[in-house]
Parts: sequence; structure tokens; C-alpha cells
Amino acid sequence: MTHKPGIVITGASGRMGQMLIKTVLESDQATLAGAVEREGHAWAGRDVGEAMGGAPVGVTVTTDALEAFSKAQAVIDFTSPEATLNFSKLAAQARAVHVIGTTGMSDEQISQLEPASRHAVIVRAGNMSLGVNLLVQLTKKVAAALDEDFDIEVIEAHHHHKVDAPSGTALMLGEAAAEGRGVKLEDVRDSGRDGITGARKRGDIGFTAIRGGDIVGEHDVLFAAAGERIVLRHLASDRAIFARGALKAALWGQGKEPGQYDMVDVLGL
Amino acid sequence: MTHKPGIVITGASGRMGQMLIKTVLESDQATLAGAVEREGHAWAGRDVGEAMGGAPVGVTVTTDALEAFSKAQAVIDFTSPEATLNFSKLAAQARAVHVIGTTGMSDEQISQLEPASRHAVIVRAGNMSLGVNLLVQLTKKVAAALDEDFDIEVIEAHHHHKVDAPSGTALMLGEAAAEGRGVKLEDVRDSGRDGITGARKRGDIGFTAIRGGDIVGEHDVLFAAAGERIVLRHLASDRAIFARGALKAALWGQGKEPGQYDMVDVLGL
Amino acid sequence: MTHKPGIVITGASGRMGQMLIKTVLESDQATLAGAVEREGHAWAGRDVGEAMGGAPVGVTVTTDALEAFSKAQAVIDFTSPEATLNFSKLAAQARAVHVIGTTGMSDEQISQLEPASRHAVIVRAGNMSLGVNLLVQLTKKVAAALDEDFDIEVIEAHHHHKVDAPSGTALMLGEAAAEGRGVKLEDVRDSGRDGITGARKRGDIGFTAIRGGDIVGEHDVLFAAAGERIVLRHLASDRAIFARGALKAALWGQGKEPGQYDMVDVLGL
Amino acid sequence: MTHKPGIVITGASGRMGQMLIKTVLESDQATLAGAVEREGHAWAGRDVGEAMGGAPVGVTVTTDALEAFSKAQAVIDFTSPEATLNFSKLAAQARAVHVIGTTGMSDEQISQLEPASRHAVIVRAGNMSLGVNLLVQLTKKVAAALDEDFDIEVIEAHHHHKVDAPSGTALMLGEAAAEGRGVKLEDVRDSGRDGITGARKRGDIGFTAIRGGDIVGEHDVLFAAAGERIVLRHLASDRAIFARGALKAALWGQGKEPGQYDMVDVLGL
Repeated sequence: MTHKPGIVITGASGRMGQMLIKTVLESDQATLAGAVEREGHAWAGRDVGEAMGGAPVGVTVTTDALEAFSKAQAVIDFTSPEATLNFSKLAAQARAVHVIGTTGMSDEQISQLEPASRHAVIVRAGNMSLGVNLLVQLTKKVAAALDEDFDIEVIEAHHHHKVDAPSGTALMLGEAAAEGRGVKLEDVRDSGRDGITGARKRGDIGFTAIRGGDIVGEHDVLFAAAGERIVLRHLASDRAIFARGALKAALWGQGKEPGQYDMVDVLGL
Repeated sequence: MTHKPGIVITGASGRMGQMLIKTVLESDQATLAGAVEREGHAWAGRDVGEAMGGAPVGVTVTTDALEAFSKAQAVIDFTSPEATLNFSKLAAQARAVHVIGTTGMSDEQISQLEPASRHAVIVRAGNMSLGVNLLVQLTKKVAAALDEDFDIEVIEAHHHHKVDAPSGTALMLGEAAAEGRGVKLEDVRDSGRDGITGARKRGDIGFTAIRGGDIVGEHDVLFAAAGERIVLRHLASDRAIFARGALKAALWGQGKEPGQYDMVDVLGL
Repeated sequence: MTHKPGIVITGASGRMGQMLIKTVLESDQATLAGAVEREGHAWAGRDVGEAMGGAPVGVTVTTDALEAFSKAQAVIDFTSPEATLNFSKLAAQARAVHVIGTTGMSDEQISQLEPASRHAVIVRAGNMSLGVNLLVQLTKKVAAALDEDFDIEVIEAHHHHKVDAPSGTALMLGEAAAEGRGVKLEDVRDSGRDGITGARKRGDIGFTAIRGGDIVGEHDVLFAAAGERIVLRHLASDRAIFARGALKAALWGQGKEPGQYDMVDVLGL
Repeated sequence: MTHKPGIVITGASGRMGQMLIKTVLESDQATLAGAVEREGHAWAGRDVGEAMGGAPVGVTVTTDALEAFSKAQAVIDFTSPEATLNFSKLAAQARAVHVIGTTGMSDEQISQLEPASRHAVIVRAGNMSLGVNLLVQLTKKVAAALDEDFDIEVIEAHHHHKVDAPSGTALMLGEAAAEGRGVKLEDVRDSGRDGITGARKRGDIGFTAIRGGDIVGEHDVLFAAAGERIVLRHLASDRAIFARGALKAALWGQGKEPGQYDMVDVLGL
């Protein structure tokens, strides 16, 4: 008999779903309890290991999420806002921890998670990487400790397919810096420098975006004063860190009081 | 009438003494109240501005430290351990804040500061830079937050005149990392990698020392796991930051309860 | 009818072999003409795509290297020194370009490639990455252009499994720097700094080795003088670059005069 | 009797003029032969060492440039375009090497240097740092050696007083990259990324500008492909490097054929 929590992965056939399945299978702290796909998907009824092009793993892809959740201790879910809202009800019914990495949820959709969080643990974060969440915390502390003699710049680098700048994570870091300083980011944001810009305005928070190759994601928060600089840097080289962060959240949530949590709670900062 | 604290600089003719004098003269938050040199020094009796090769500043170099201290609110002191112990008594008598940047004090010498600290504020630090002290704090927190999946390396770079490796500050950072992890640095220290070293031992804290040119001092604390890295970096490009840190400590100490403090108190972390 | 060169991969079942096969299959400039394994290997007779756990690709793994080579325009070979010597004879017989990424060949073994190179093109390199080979060339040029006012340091970072320091590539870069300066590396090498080292010796070439996480391979060549520094940096984040470099060499070799070449020739530097 | 070339500094009282004078005085390969200021300047007739606030050096500031030039072997000139055109005639008359670091010269003004260069050596460069000029050469070579699989980004960082972005040196590096690739920079320049930019366009050369503290000047040229990156980096930490570059040019020019040269010639690349 094992006491390792059983984990269900939703959106099993997606790029992130497959990465989550691999991460759970490789972990010695959890077992794969289920793999969920939507009604009519080609993977339904197949062994998920075989569907992924490898050896069978003894878990059949199902379209019955509630049944899968009820045999598990946690659900990891990087799908769409609508699907996630539905899964949150089923996970609450099954009293399973619901780890949400789904992006693009509106404030209204987020507020609809509330009823479920009265019955079960929900951990939700825009970026599941331990490192990035730690960096956000550090940025806030450092910005609060230093005065405006230190110019703050957020520098990020991503692959050439990325269509927006600065990255969502860069803005998260900028928000943390602004919060640490007690200002609003929108009042001090300086991005897209080009041409005759004039001298840098004291108190501004600058953003620069580097694009090239297949860079997974790199973020620097620079605090530059006369004679010294502090840099807080995060380098992601493998998207698997998001899967590992989600699994860590699922394990952390075991036995916690129902409610909504984020990665800062998981990290214990 | 001004309420700006008056500052006395000891060891006025030394490289650090002159930098401290310039820093106080350039500050709009403090005034230069005195400049002290030892009995018989060529600068004694001269205007300190002229002695430094510039215009007169209206402050005569004196060898009577007590008289100078008694007209001031703070003393900044980067001299020798013996001189510093003597100055601590005189500063306490004058109820002036004593900022100590002197290096190389033994544990016994440090304990001899205790009587003075019952009557006056003492701020003492091995490195007066705000940035480095902040980095030490961050390193401890991050090391405590992350487990041994993250390999810790301290990487430093200094000018080619430096005779020891790793730097004192690198070791301070390593101590902070070890403390954060609840281990002793001496048990996990790994420095001087060369040849067939075998695989890196889990839990070790590695040190590497780069030497070249006139690099003032650069320190990275790297936390490297599978798929992600966090780097905490400090770059010093001007030794004046040590003078500015000392001045900040002198101002911070005004009105504080007698006792011994360090730069972490000054930073309010 | 296609004019894309057909490529044979030796050691098809190995980690590098599989990566080479994927690289050729994904290329639109070459086709996979064969996959070779040793007599008795489990993959022999199987479709190589299926053997790798994916869909069939229409190429059957063979143990008859000569037959495979004779239907191809190039052979890419990351195997063992002994196997490579044998393959070089067969490739020469087939007039196929032989790209050798095999490491650990002795000087004597290398000299045994000579007869083959009279009849066919051989491209051989210790590191098949375009970037590293370019960095080696740049390092030599820069070291030749700058005098000893510039201290040279080679800084490398690798994953925590690596058992030796500095890396082979770091030493290659150090050799290039020494050659640029007209000195012998053994006379100026300074690695493993630790403790009271004394000031850095003018003209020395220093090496430092960082170990942590799963870093694939990062190399900096630092030239540090008073007031300025130049850094030549290479970052590898995916071992596939070695496969791509080999394929580029195979394509480059088409139609060239028989002889021995290296990646510097391929790059055209 | 000494064979060290005598150097005249024009614009002696300016920030760059004073730095040039210090650099020549500290050199053991040259002597200070003269210091020139414009008619009516307060320094005229004074010892230049004393005028700079230090000890006398035995050189009196003169307003008679021709007389000063005729006793010297070289003139170093960081003044204004108009002054420089006049000095070029006088230097040619005196057969002295004319090192020009003056910025902001129009194409027409540059063409007016031609007559002088028929009689004397002129070395002119937009940036006198050895390192930056070397970086420009390397950038051109690397851009020529690599295809468009490598995305090129020029990343620069400067102090918060700088009013334009990207820096002139960053554009110089971008021009070199474009030339290496055989394209026009104006056709591929991508600066000021902000908002929904769409995916990076293949072949573009991107620019980003970081501003903070008192950073003297840092430039990275990044070549990023799938799985690997090359970075060519220059860090300036002291404006004295521009003075040292100019002195090196003055020494290099001794005995050369009359004509116009730049720092690439001086470096011998």
C-alpha cells in the first residue's frame, strides 16, 4: 500500500499536459491517478503512455473527469478558463487539491472559483516556476529597502516567436517593484526607449525586451545606483520547471485548509 | 543655524580617509566637523582641503581626537584595530555615533567595544556597501527557501592585485547561504576546482575566483537546479560606495539607543 | 528525383545517434539514407523510426556499413575511435564524406585517417558546435590583437555531473588564447585558485569552473584591462547543436577535394 | 636626450583635455610637449599642472597652436569640428600626427581633412577605445560567418543622464553586423519593442537600451539561434580608456606614411 498522492492531469494530450504526465511519472513522491481529455478526443480510451508514443503506463485516458478526480488527491490543470471553472467544481466535490496553471482568466472568472475554494484547496499562479515566484518576492523586498537613488530596470529575453513585450512575468516583476516602493506601475513605467528620450526620470521603472533564438525565458531586475548595482536574475532553460512547480503545489496542498493559495504560500516566503 | 550632523573623519590622509572627507563635503545631509590624524603627521595643522591638493574647506587637521569628537555628532573610522579601540572610548565619552569600517579586528578586539557601546551608538560592518549587505540577507533567505536540488555557487571577480581567493565578501555570502540551509560552511565548502574532481557533491557550496584588470568587486550567488537558475548579483564599480554606506550609517545612528549595530540594522531589513 | 545528399548515421541507437537521425529527418536539405548498428544489435533489421519509439520512416537499421555508405553521399559518425577508423576506410571506398565527431582519438589513431583522406573528404572536430568553433577563432584573434595589459580568464559552467575541470572546450579556448599570444598554455595556465595565491601574474591565462544544475555548457573568455573588458561568450542550451553542426559539415563536404578538414573550414573563417 | 614622442593636447582645460594630459604624464612612452587653449582663456600662460589643481609639470598653456605643434611629434584633439579643421592644417604644417577624437563632424567637414592628410598622418575614430573598435571588427566577422538562423540583438547600458537611445556605439555595432550580412541597417533595424509587436522578423537586428546609475557604457552583441548563443561584450568602466586609445594612436602614427587612418589600423586587425 502506498501513501503517495495520486494526481490527475487534465488536457492530457496538450504540450503542457504531456509534460505534466511525464513529470508525475518520474516523481517518487506522487503517482499518476488519471488523465482527462474532452469528450470525443482521439486519445479517449487509450493508455496514456502509448498515446504519448511510448510504453503503456496502466492509466487509460478518460472523459469522465469527476470519476477520475474522486480517485485522486490532486488535479493539475493547465487548460482554458472555461474548462478550469468546470473542473474547480468537480475537484471541490471530490475534495481534491486543484492546482491551476491556466492563463488568461478574467477577474470575474477568478471570482467564480470562490465557492469551490470553500470546500477544497485551490493553488493558482500565473507562473508556476519556483524561481520566478521567489524573484517576485525578492524584488518587492529590495525595492522597499532601497530608495530612488537606485534606478530599477526589468530586462527580459525570450525566443523569437513571442509576440508581446514586455513579457507577463516582466510586468509581474515591475508590479512587485512598484509595490515595494509604494507607487503605481502605470505612473512610473518606461518601456520602448528609442530615439531622443531625454534623461531617465528618477523613480521610473524601465523595461527592455530582447528577442532571439529559442530562449525559454530570462528575467533580470536591475537596481543601479552610483558606484554599485544589484541584479536579481532568473533563467528558465526548460519548460518542465512549470510542471515541477505545479506538482510541488499539489503535494503541498495535501491536508491544508480549504481556500485559495498561490505559489508564495507553497514556497513559504 | 543648521541641524545637519557634524562628522569627524579619522585617518584623514589615507585613501579611504580622503574618500570619506570628499563624500561628507559633497553631502547635503551632513557637514565635515573635523579631520583627525596621528601625532606628528605632516597634515596636522593644515587645512584638510588644501592638504588633499584642492581648495581650503575651513577644517584644520587635528591630532586631538577627543576635542574633535566632542564637537561632532558622529565619527567615521576606517583605520586599524588598535586605533579603533581607542577611538571607541573617546567617541563614547563624546556621545558621538562611532561608525567602524576597520577590517581585521579579532573576536577579542570586537568584544572590547562592548563598554563603549553602553554609552554610545556603534555601527560596525566588514563591508559598508548597502548592496553587499542586502545581498547577504537575500542569500540567506533564498538558501532557506530552496532545497538542495539547487546547487549553490559563489562566483567573485576582483582586480589582479588581489592576493587571496575567495574574497572575504564571497565567504560572507557563503556563510549566509550555509546559515540559510542550516549547515556549517566548513562542511560543504568546495573551492579551487581543478583536474579530476568527480561529480559535484549534493549540498556543497562552491566558490570560484576570477582575477583581472581593475575590477573593483563583483559577486554572484548562483542557485542552479534542473531547468532553472536564480542569480543574486552585486557589482561595485566605485570604492566611494563604502564611504557613502558609512555616511548613511552615521546619519541613521542619530538619536538611536546606545548599542552595537550593523548595516543590516541601517538597511532596516 | 531529389538532389538532397543522403546521409548515413552510425551508432544509430546511441543518444547522439538518435539525435543525429532526428536532425537529418527534420532537415529539408538532406535525406536519411541509412542507419548503422553493430552486428547482433537489437535494432538490426527494424525500421529506425519505430526502434526510436515513433512512427516508421522507411529506413531499416543495417549492420552492413559498406552497403549503406555506398548508397549515400555522407556518413556522420559519433562512435568510438576503433569503429571510426574502420568506417573511414569504408567511407573512402564509397567516396562518401566522413564527418567524425568521435572523441578520445589518440594522435596515432588520427594519423591512421590519412590514407582514407586521400580518397574522400573527412571533416573532424572535437566540438561540432558552430558557435564554439567560432569562439575559438575569435579568441585567437583577440589574444593576438591585445597585449598583456589585458588579463585573460576562461570561465566555464557545466552541469553537476561533470567530473573534470576545466572543461575540454575551456582548454581549447585557452590554447587558442596562448597561440594568439605566442606562448605555451602550460607556461601560463593558472587554474584552481584558492587561499593565499599572491597577486595575479601578468601574462597568465586563468581558468575557473562553475558547476550546478543541468547547465549544458557555457564558456566566457574574458580580456580584462584597466577601465575596460571584452568578453567572448558561448552558451549551449541544447545538445542538438552538435548534431546540426555535423550535418552542416556533411553538406559542406559535398564536391570538395579529398582531404582532412575541420569546422573552421566549414565555417569559412 | 629622449626619443619619446612629445604630445600636445588641445582643449587642455576640458574634462577630456585634462584626462588626456594625465594620461600622457603617466605614460613612460611619451612626454607632454604642450597644452593648447583658445585665445583669452584663463589658463593661458599658467603651468598646466597647477591649472589642473596639482603640482607644476613644466608645461605652460599656450594659445599659439602652431608653435606648440612644431615642437611636438603628435597632437591629440578632442575639441569641436571647427577647431579640429583648423588644427588639422597646423598639424600638417608641423608634420605632426593628428589624432582626432572630436565627435559630431559632418561628412563635408570630414572631407575637408583631405588636404592635411596628404602631408601628415591623421587618425580619426568615433570611439577611441581599443575594446570597442575590436568589438566592431568582431561583430562584422561573426555576422558574415553566421546565417540568419542567428538572430542579432545589440544590447547597451548607460548612465541615467544619457538622452538618446540606442547609443552611437550600439548603432556602430549594428552597422557592422548589417555590413557583415550584406544588408542595410535601415532595412532591418528593430528598436523600441513595446506592446503587441508580433513575432520577431527573421533577419532583423534588434536594439535595446538599459539606463541606470552611472554605468559608463556596456555593449553586448547577441547572436541567438536554436540551442546556442554567442555574445560579444564590451564593458567600459573608466573614461580614461578613450584617452589611452588616443595616446596609442599617437604613438602608432610615428613614422607612418601621410594619410587618413582609424583605430582599426592602429589595432592591426
